[in-house]
Amino acid sequence: MPTNVVRILPLGGVGEIGKNCMVIETDEDAILVDAGLKFPEEEMLGVDLVIPDVSYLQQKLHLLRGIFITHGHEDHIGALPYILPELDVPVYATRLAHGLISVKLREHRLLDEVTLRPMAPGDVVQAGSFTVEPFAVTHSIPDCVGLAIGTPIGTIVHSGDFKFDATPVYGPPIDREALAALGRRGVLCLLSDCVRVDKAGYTPSERIVGEAFDAIVGKRRGRVIIATFASNISRIQQAIDVAQRHGRKVAVVGRSMASNSGVAAELGFLQTNGTVIAVDKVRKLPPEEVLLLTTGSQGEPSSALSRIASNDHRQIRLVPGDTVIVSATPIPGNEETVGHTIDNLLRLGAEVIYEPLATVHVSGHASREELKLLIELLQPRYCVPIHGEYRHMVLYRQVAGEAGVPPENVPLIEVGDVLELGEDYARLAEHIPVSSVLVDGVTVGVTSDVVLRDRQHLSRDGIVIAVVTLDRMTGELLAGPEVITRGLPHPPYSEDVIEAAREQVREVLRRGPAAEVEHGFLAQKIRETLGEFVYAQLRSHPMILPVITEV
Amino acid sequence: MPTNVVRILPLGGVGEIGKNCMVIETDEDAILVDAGLKFPEEEMLGVDLVIPDVSYLQQKLHLLRGIFITHGHEDHIGALPYILPELDVPVYATRLAHGLISVKLREHRLLDEVTLRPMAPGDVVQAGSFTVEPFAVTHSIPDCVGLAIGTPIGTIVHSGDFKFDATPVYGPPIDREALAALGRRGVLCLLSDCVRVDKAGYTPSERIVGEAFDAIVGKRRGRVIIATFASNISRIQQAIDVAQRHGRKVAVVGRSMASNSGVAAELGFLQTNGTVIAVDKVRKLPPEEVLLLTTGSQGEPSSALSRIASNDHRQIRLVPGDTVIVSATPIPGNEETVGHTIDNLLRLGAEVIYEPLATVHVSGHASREELKLLIELLQPRYCVPIHGEYRHMVLYRQVAGEAGVPPENVPLIEVGDVLELGEDYARLAEHIPVSSVLVDGVTVGVTSDVVLRDRQHLSRDGIVIAVVTLDRMTGELLAGPEVITRGLPHPPYSEDVIEAAREQVREVLRRGPAAEVEHGFLAQKIRETLGEFVYAQLRSHPMILPVITEV
Repeated sequence: MPTNVVRILPLGGVGEIGKNCMVIETDEDAILVDAGLKFPEEEMLGVDLVIPDVSYLQQKLHLLRGIFITHGHEDHIGALPYILPELDVPVYATRLAHGLISVKLREHRLLDEVTLRPMAPGDVVQAGSFTVEPFAVTHSIPDCVGLAIGTPIGTIVHSGDFKFDATPVYGPPIDREALAALGRRGVLCLLSDCVRVDKAGYTPSERIVGEAFDAIVGKRRGRVIIATFASNISRIQQAIDVAQRHGRKVAVVGRSMASNSGVAAELGFLQTNGTVIAVDKVRKLPPEEVLLLTTGSQGEPSSALSRIASNDHRQIRLVPGDTVIVSATPIPGNEETVGHTIDNLLRLGAEVIYEPLATVHVSGHASREELKLLIELLQPRYCVPIHGEYRHMVLYRQVAGEAGVPPENVPLIEVGDVLELGEDYARLAEHIPVSSVLVDGVTVGVTSDVVLRDRQHLSRDGIVIAVVTLDRMTGELLAGPEVITRGLPHPPYSEDVIEAAREQVREVLRRGPAAEVEHGFLAQKIRETLGEFVYAQLRSHPMILPVITEV
Repeated sequence: MPTNVVRILPLGGVGEIGKNCMVIETDEDAILVDAGLKFPEEEMLGVDLVIPDVSYLQQKLHLLRGIFITHGHEDHIGALPYILPELDVPVYATRLAHGLISVKLREHRLLDEVTLRPMAPGDVVQAGSFTVEPFAVTHSIPDCVGLAIGTPIGTIVHSGDFKFDATPVYGPPIDREALAALGRRGVLCLLSDCVRVDKAGYTPSERIVGEAFDAIVGKRRGRVIIATFASNISRIQQAIDVAQRHGRKVAVVGRSMASNSGVAAELGFLQTNGTVIAVDKVRKLPPEEVLLLTTGSQGEPSSALSRIASNDHRQIRLVPGDTVIVSATPIPGNEETVGHTIDNLLRLGAEVIYEPLATVHVSGHASREELKLLIELLQPRYCVPIHGEYRHMVLYRQVAGEAGVPPENVPLIEVGDVLELGEDYARLAEHIPVSSVLVDGVTVGVTSDVVLRDRQHLSRDGIVIAVVTLDRMTGELLAGPEVITRGLPHPPYSEDVIEAAREQVREVLRRGPAAEVEHGFLAQKIRETLGEFVYAQLRSHPMILPVITEV
């Protein structure tokens, strides 16, 4: 690799939403921007989390100068507890992100082993030959930054997650003048959030959600329950402000939200002014003085809101007169469970307010005009869309074109693609095999495709197990065949089918003397014969597992 | 049951979208309106279809006068092949629905065994003491009707699926004057479509999709591929019209769309004017003369569009310059797969146009103002929302209130609820246990909760099978224990774990002489011990299946 070259390699977060993780490197230094997780897709059965595969960095540990975190959302920090044991480097983060990361590391008993370094807008962090300058951006959590990264060949700007919120709930709006100044100094490449590029115009301010809360809470006499993401500190702040304005106390229900808001309050990012009290205290108040904040806006089965909706929560029981505000939009794939949660809340007699009935949620990401505005302020030579699905990236290229960046200067890269940037060129240099790491219970990263395929097979068609016990010397059938099934379509004649299946196995054994044939061959014959038999009976292709033992 | 009472009992289609099926009965006569299917929810692993449970009608076969079909969509006719063998009664349907039902029955080799009776707007069908008068409504397929059902206690109007389309693609707009006349004669109860009640205003005309097609196709020089539902005959008509206007020939790719459009053309509901040709002929034409129509707008894995997107279609291979129009919105739960299909089409270099980028889809259902309009025209005493999720029904009650129907006159019923209607009252009379029937391969209706729970367990955590072979007399271990796993998280030390697991089983056998204990007890001990062991190793709770054989 020539020395006047910078390589950009996404390990996550391009061509897919979430799991943000980006390597920026020269031949002498490397940094990582963000280390997020994402939740598994529908077909990843039994998988709990998906995190980036950082094995590429293991050969480069001596070059890695640090991990830079843009903000404290799960899809930017959630992988840290899993990858930090492998990558022993300092983590740079703003104060709030810092606090939220600490909570996570403490849960994983890693807090003492990790070097956390503070970083704030205006700082200049030297990371080998890179200088990293965080600048404040607005999003749906306070204390977010983008990064201006000085490299040997020019400045690379990483936008982080952002929108141009003129009236943010915490802190000042984005300093456009400072961005324009950065642009005048020269930006080689902008890595830009693109996930909301399919929305025209500007994303509304986070404030409008507070106004909607105010209008709703002001008119209600019963309890109000607001469900949102545990990490949405700005939303939580607005709920607290509204409660206070209308003489209500707030209790936080749900462990993750309680610990996040605790950290945010401790660090001064959440002003509670004595409004937040314990759940058991709030239960003694009259309904018109109660506002509950809870997780579960995505219909997650184990969340507080799902339990409340199923009348299965230890502390909260819904009654008619209660109002539930679902302050989120479903992440693609969650629409069905969110819908069921709302239906169940309604069945319990609560009033439920959700989009599109009222503006109780707003995105934290820039719409099309804001994406163009960022380009116009920074005047980058190259633009690379990040934090979006492939279709968002394609559309971003078109939008960047409207802002004056020609399509050939908007390279689209996916996970594992290495973008090589020179002073006057950008090219796809190579593709490194990078997979996703699936976290399954306590087991990190070893749930293979084979396992997922097996689980899909089992989940679709069930399993048939055939056990035969043979005489080691003669091959004679000593016991069985036992045929056991799980998860098969259940016809009323199932006892007969099982007996007929056993006869099929006996027939296989009769055809050739088992002692003379290899067990592998015999197993294969049983698998084939039983497979055909079950398909003829049930039009189903279960997994067939012959077990042959010898005595 | 008193004689001046009508009972309304949904077997599907209220409190859930799809699977529409409604019993309307007196103590002397019963009719069924629609017999639809729905596609399984995410947690119904391995299930292909969900159909209504009509077992309630089996004791009433002598009272059942007919099945009345409002239109030819899957969620209204799809269950017929499964329930008609049990319910041998005439099926009344309009001509197009008739044709589409015939295709289905022919596939199931049932066509000769079923009595199909034609029905058209203006007809009066006598069904015992009921008179059924279909009236034309507009929706996203031609030849749709609502039903005015004369009963001993008054008129019940079933809206079917409808919107007030002033410029439908086929046939006239809804005759508002006739509905108003019906209203003046007196309507006791309106059963109303409510699925789009969360949208304010009016749903746009189906025509606007044709205009969008026209604008897109007119500007393209490459092939255009339009993906939509196989049964969306109006959409198919508009695609054909646009193709013709721009000098393109149309080929239909996908078996279900080809057979549906064939039937529609044969019956005069689709005007092809020589524009539609075979797929192998269209391949010889230059790209600017080609328009392909295909299924797969929901990202269904085996559909033509998914295959094209995976570069796996026998006849169609995408090239840059091709344009794909996804003319549908994802049904809740399908967002993720639809998104992946679009991403893959883009990766192959095609241009892809989908909502919200252009108005290439419009709903066939009434928005809020249209729902109110129907109430205002018919002036029903009672309104019952149907064809919606529970949240839509709750909202419909509020909207009906705005149209002057008090909330106590808008009873919400769910599947199995029996609404008893008298001349001057409506009350929830009882709840009949009605489940959904799951169709799983060739097996109808016997996939039980146990099977689904097993599949969920297997899909999440996999299975561990432990086989031990014992001496029948002494209880001594003769062979094994064999421990086999499938679908478990796969740690690198898995061989050791298996050996340790075998040792656990041996230990169970050593503790008590097996001959003296019941096999059930032994199996339980093995299950417990292995369960604890696997959890300690992997933090996973697989299904544990001990198999004990004796020799």
